[in-house]
Amino acid sequence: MRAITVGEPGGPENLRWTEVEDPKAGPGEVVLDVAATAVNRADLLQRQGNYPPPPGASDVIGLECSGRIAEVGPEVTGWSAGDEVCALLAGGGYAQKVAVPAAQLLPVPQGVDLVVAGSLPEVACTVYSNVVQFAQLRGGQTFLVHGGSSGIGTHAIQVAKALGARVAVTANPARFDVCRELGADIVIDYDGDVPEELKKATDGHGADVILDNMGAKGLKANVAALATDGRLMVIGMQGGVKAELNLGALLTKRASVTAMSLRGRPVDGPQGKAAVVEGVRDRIWPLVADGRVKPVVHARFPLAEAAEAHRTLDAGGVVGKLLLVNE
Amino acid sequence: MRAITVGEPGGPENLRWTEVEDPKAGPGEVVLDVAATAVNRADLLQRQGNYPPPPGASDVIGLECSGRIAEVGPEVTGWSAGDEVCALLAGGGYAQKVAVPAAQLLPVPQGVDLVVAGSLPEVACTVYSNVVQFAQLRGGQTFLVHGGSSGIGTHAIQVAKALGARVAVTANPARFDVCRELGADIVIDYDGDVPEELKKATDGHGADVILDNMGAKGLKANVAALATDGRLMVIGMQGGVKAELNLGALLTKRASVTAMSLRGRPVDGPQGKAAVVEGVRDRIWPLVADGRVKPVVHARFPLAEAAEAHRTLDAGGVVGKLLLVNE
Repeated sequence: MRAITVGEPGGPENLRWTEVEDPKAGPGEVVLDVAATAVNRADLLQRQGNYPPPPGASDVIGLECSGRIAEVGPEVTGWSAGDEVCALLAGGGYAQKVAVPAAQLLPVPQGVDLVVAGSLPEVACTVYSNVVQFAQLRGGQTFLVHGGSSGIGTHAIQVAKALGARVAVTANPARFDVCRELGADIVIDYDGDVPEELKKATDGHGADVILDNMGAKGLKANVAALATDGRLMVIGMQGGVKAELNLGALLTKRASVTAMSLRGRPVDGPQGKAAVVEGVRDRIWPLVADGRVKPVVHARFPLAEAAEAHRTLDAGGVVGKLLLVNE
Repeated sequence: MRAITVGEPGGPENLRWTEVEDPKAGPGEVVLDVAATAVNRADLLQRQGNYPPPPGASDVIGLECSGRIAEVGPEVTGWSAGDEVCALLAGGGYAQKVAVPAAQLLPVPQGVDLVVAGSLPEVACTVYSNVVQFAQLRGGQTFLVHGGSSGIGTHAIQVAKALGARVAVTANPARFDVCRELGADIVIDYDGDVPEELKKATDGHGADVILDNMGAKGLKANVAALATDGRLMVIGMQGGVKAELNLGALLTKRASVTAMSLRGRPVDGPQGKAAVVEGVRDRIWPLVADGRVKPVVHARFPLAEAAEAHRTLDAGGVVGKLLLVNE
């Protein structure tokens, strides 16, 4: 088969469409014929050599895909060759075939095209595991997501709205409208005074749950923006890793700061990928099936042209996800 | 009635045993004839002017007590004059009488003396709300409590042990034995390399839940000591308020930092005092009744001599709680 491989860590030009060995389905795994994969910001870091795959994972980039089951390994039940699925991957998505634990498979949600389904697993599992499973966002609460027009943002707005939350986003003002169309009640310029603007818009309440991709740079403002009993979920470090934390401010609010990623999780266990995938299937897929949560795809590229998709994400202004289609 | 009042904020000598007005039972409240109250570190801060009571609370020091119900206010059901109880207070415990919302009352646990019961509500509600309710410590997990011989520490060791956890403490080596007698499996010198010692003693696992009273000073070591999916609960700031947080270290572990206090909580709501008290009654009181969790009282003082008790806590070396008895 062919896959995108990285020659030397570096820029998009280092991505090559090359012949590699086919994956095999180990115990509990299936092999998929990939229909599409999608670009995540973590892929850019991996290309640069800054996000090595966890032990045992493929060294091919790609954290999600859709496709058809080509081979079913031993000890797999409930799935058959030919099934159309999408999957959360620890790696290997930028390829014509990929092996994945069956526990990380999801059916293609009703009403969603097989190719488009390749854009859903990573955002759905990230938003579900952080916002629903861990932070337990409930109806009537206020939710703030940074980067409202990003892949995560466009999905999180819709999920939070479907849960009955009041949804606030930060975004570039040029993309306020798209955030509002997806359901955002409050839009805030990400260069502005976010805690102040959020408090103005919520009668001083602040955010019960914040989903943050900036890390250090946003920590102080995020703690300031939290409501009493608020939960800050950090899923990215685009603004650095280390920052001063005011524990007194946290204590006054009985608030928490949590940082989580999906990729390094084991398959099993209460925090494992299988539990996340099961939750997505039970709680999020019905929202996709009834149209309350729509996949948001900015553009499609042939998988062989992944480099161009990486340049597009780097350039900024992408609304939702970039699909890589195995044509 | 008489109560301990603070003249000018300052040292223990500023505590006075003075005549003040009797409290009245408002709607949903009872008035107790106080049998005993107990000293908490927060009381010392309040005496110094550094921990003002929340709005609406008594300005008399004292976060817990035991006693008999003297008066039942309107809208109170399930309690009668003469009932022997103990109570979580927002203030007012250092007095002959105190008014308290009925939702913050607990029965005196079976087998515990009425006076001794005055030492239980604050530690029981703090440990329950942080370790059981929020951090959800489970059997087989590893629990680390700092200051194992303190009031909180002596109670937390026993509760965690009863939950089936492996219990680690930091303490002064002079008090290792008492921590072991209470159930600690692992004792670590609080001046040592705590993460390193804990990892050595747990085959590299670390702590699933940490209960910390030091705040800033311990933050880095606590994050280092956390296990994957670990929860750091900060309930005190004896080592300062602000410290650098490495979000990358947190993310690698999918870990969280939470800071909470009881005093400022509302009575009602999912995080309110009533829910905490109900949880203590259901989950902790049976452990006290069957002897698995014993009150640990270091010394008793007449309530009028609260100043001497404050000096004793300040001097260090106290194991468990100091009772103030209304003689």
